[in-house]
Amino acid sequence: MFVYADHAATTKILPCALEAYNQTAWAFYGNPSSLHTEGQRAKEVLEKSRGEIAAVLNADPREIYFTSGGSEADNQAILSAAYAGAKKGKRKLISTAIEHHAVLHTLEKLQKEGFEVVLLPVGHEGIVKAEDVRDAIDENTALVSVMLANNEIGTLQPVEEIGKICREKGVLFHTDAVQAVGHIPVDVQSIGCDYLALSAHKFGGPKGVGVLYAKRGAPLSVLIAGGAQERGKRAGTEDLPAIAAMAAALKASVADMGTSSALLKKLQTKLIFGLSRIPHSSLNGDRERRLPGNVSFCFEGCEGEALLLYLDDEGICASSGSACTSGSLDPSHVLLAIGRVHDVAHGSLRLTLGPENTEADVDYLLEKIPEVVEKVRSFSPVWRDLREGKRQFIL
Amino acid sequence: MFVYADHAATTKILPCALEAYNQTAWAFYGNPSSLHTEGQRAKEVLEKSRGEIAAVLNADPREIYFTSGGSEADNQAILSAAYAGAKKGKRKLISTAIEHHAVLHTLEKLQKEGFEVVLLPVGHEGIVKAEDVRDAIDENTALVSVMLANNEIGTLQPVEEIGKICREKGVLFHTDAVQAVGHIPVDVQSIGCDYLALSAHKFGGPKGVGVLYAKRGAPLSVLIAGGAQERGKRAGTEDLPAIAAMAAALKASVADMGTSSALLKKLQTKLIFGLSRIPHSSLNGDRERRLPGNVSFCFEGCEGEALLLYLDDEGICASSGSACTSGSLDPSHVLLAIGRVHDVAHGSLRLTLGPENTEADVDYLLEKIPEVVEKVRSFSPVWRDLREGKRQFIL
Repeated sequence: MFVYADHAATTKILPCALEAYNQTAWAFYGNPSSLHTEGQRAKEVLEKSRGEIAAVLNADPREIYFTSGGSEADNQAILSAAYAGAKKGKRKLISTAIEHHAVLHTLEKLQKEGFEVVLLPVGHEGIVKAEDVRDAIDENTALVSVMLANNEIGTLQPVEEIGKICREKGVLFHTDAVQAVGHIPVDVQSIGCDYLALSAHKFGGPKGVGVLYAKRGAPLSVLIAGGAQERGKRAGTEDLPAIAAMAAALKASVADMGTSSALLKKLQTKLIFGLSRIPHSSLNGDRERRLPGNVSFCFEGCEGEALLLYLDDEGICASSGSACTSGSLDPSHVLLAIGRVHDVAHGSLRLTLGPENTEADVDYLLEKIPEVVEKVRSFSPVWRDLREGKRQFIL
Repeated sequence: MFVYADHAATTKILPCALEAYNQTAWAFYGNPSSLHTEGQRAKEVLEKSRGEIAAVLNADPREIYFTSGGSEADNQAILSAAYAGAKKGKRKLISTAIEHHAVLHTLEKLQKEGFEVVLLPVGHEGIVKAEDVRDAIDENTALVSVMLANNEIGTLQPVEEIGKICREKGVLFHTDAVQAVGHIPVDVQSIGCDYLALSAHKFGGPKGVGVLYAKRGAPLSVLIAGGAQERGKRAGTEDLPAIAAMAAALKASVADMGTSSALLKKLQTKLIFGLSRIPHSSLNGDRERRLPGNVSFCFEGCEGEALLLYLDDEGICASSGSACTSGSLDPSHVLLAIGRVHDVAHGSLRLTLGPENTEADVDYLLEKIPEVVEKVRSFSPVWRDLREGKRQFIL
């Protein structure tokens, strides 16, 4: 049996999206900046796609900027707000300890340039407190950047409350919604954000394309300079087939959201219930306030990488943390932030389900994961020490 | 009849490239950073594509960085060299007046940050002198950036000579090879460059993907921060289907280069000869040292945009300058740099042929263009003034 349970890392492109890609690549191959018919026909598809995506997000089409993905969008949003703030003497940037590296590493770069970066802690449930954001904001604050849903543990952040606070305080607010868009309703007006980043390949769209939503009037500086595409804010010939495919995938995801979300919640509940029965295991992140497909666990005395490799042998594709940091030996910054100690954080498993997963998949996961955890523990010196009482169990 | 003669703006994706895109999207959908089989299978395709592209450029695979296109690659190369130079007190950047805006606007940004930018002139034939580069280099020089082939007039720059000078002087050398790769042989060792930018959609590959070649040891800073993809130098999940498609298109273009280049040169010669017979017309750029498919003309007393629209009515897709700057009312900076006065520069027409163009296409162009030039001139107050002797003819 084969179960792909790593949808947060990437999803397979939806048939409707691949079809849109092919159709656009063949029939609308012109450069949207060209004045001739082929160019103008391409431009129409570009603006149609922009309008469709704007409609889903409840944004104005003029607020949608196409990028090469979520990372680029995060970078551009944060740099734009920071540099605009600096011009007014505002050099404080507030974010959280559990952001994606596209946010954290951009903030680190700005810190080296002299910005003050405050990373707010989260509780054990993996959620930042809106009140902490309020308390951290002062007259020097240029930006608050809080993700909508965490990529490792799936926890949903109180972005609407944070958006309200930021508006009250007159501070720019960016939310990295890469894991959320296409999976839960995302409305830029309700969130009240100035910037929002999304990535198509997280919801059945193609890789290499995403969106930066930037509210009208929000400062926007150029990250990739050159031609006048995207109203002068993002140079480079538009990746029209991918943009049209992203629009198709987004519309399909949103249309199916009710059904798929209900299914995913059901599968999630069953999976969490089943995995909780493994001794010395613990769910990472809040039980309720999380993405419908996300199940993240720590298993004590269990090396996460070994877990993944043995699961892979059983045909199960899973992850320990985010795909972007795999290969690193450091434990996940997100798991450390929710209070997991190093040893426990190393024994993490992230299962992220998608709409094509079935109850049979979950049954298979619940058959194999306990076996594999037991096998990995049987080789583990940490587990032996725990069993022999030389170490204390934490979970 | 329909003739697409705007291949420098963008090309239609080659069937083999679109097939590679589809196959990769379906069969290798994993995230190359994932440890499981789907991830590792994707990683193999990623590295295979990297190896294939490296082989074409005569580079080491570790010198190939995948980007979202030529503009991003140009930005990253120039910023990397500039910031590395600044650390050693070198703040002079040398380039030419005819570069693409992805280069020029990045240089302008750096100029605002305190760098000294020197844009070397070109002669009437549209070629920079290597000796001018040598003379401009001093001990404060961080970078020389000279394009391989111009995007408007197709002229080939003496990059091998310039590369040799830069190596002698110990100065970093970047070349924007976006218009050249896939059309003429490009070998990073012969050029002796430290950086090279290419874009897939200019040679039948997909849009939204390109390569930054950065020689081992050349400074490389991060433009898009986040995950550890591309050896930590370019964050964001790799656009694997597009990367595999780019590799397929590049291999196909290079394999067919001998045949297609000979065909294009033949068509080019015929087209240049035919258009030269239009009164008060003049070829832009050197007759010989230009890309095989590029034909760029100025027609005096003729408004370029009107020319394009009437040609479009006849089923001919052409351009006045680059697609990236269309919509702008300023005359092309390239045409001004080769000494065309404003009025003449406004009457420009760029025809860029591709391997699918035929002799019948050229015959059709030679039938329609003279008619359209005459029609546009008949409405032109400038042409009337010229005819009535109120203005002097230049061409």
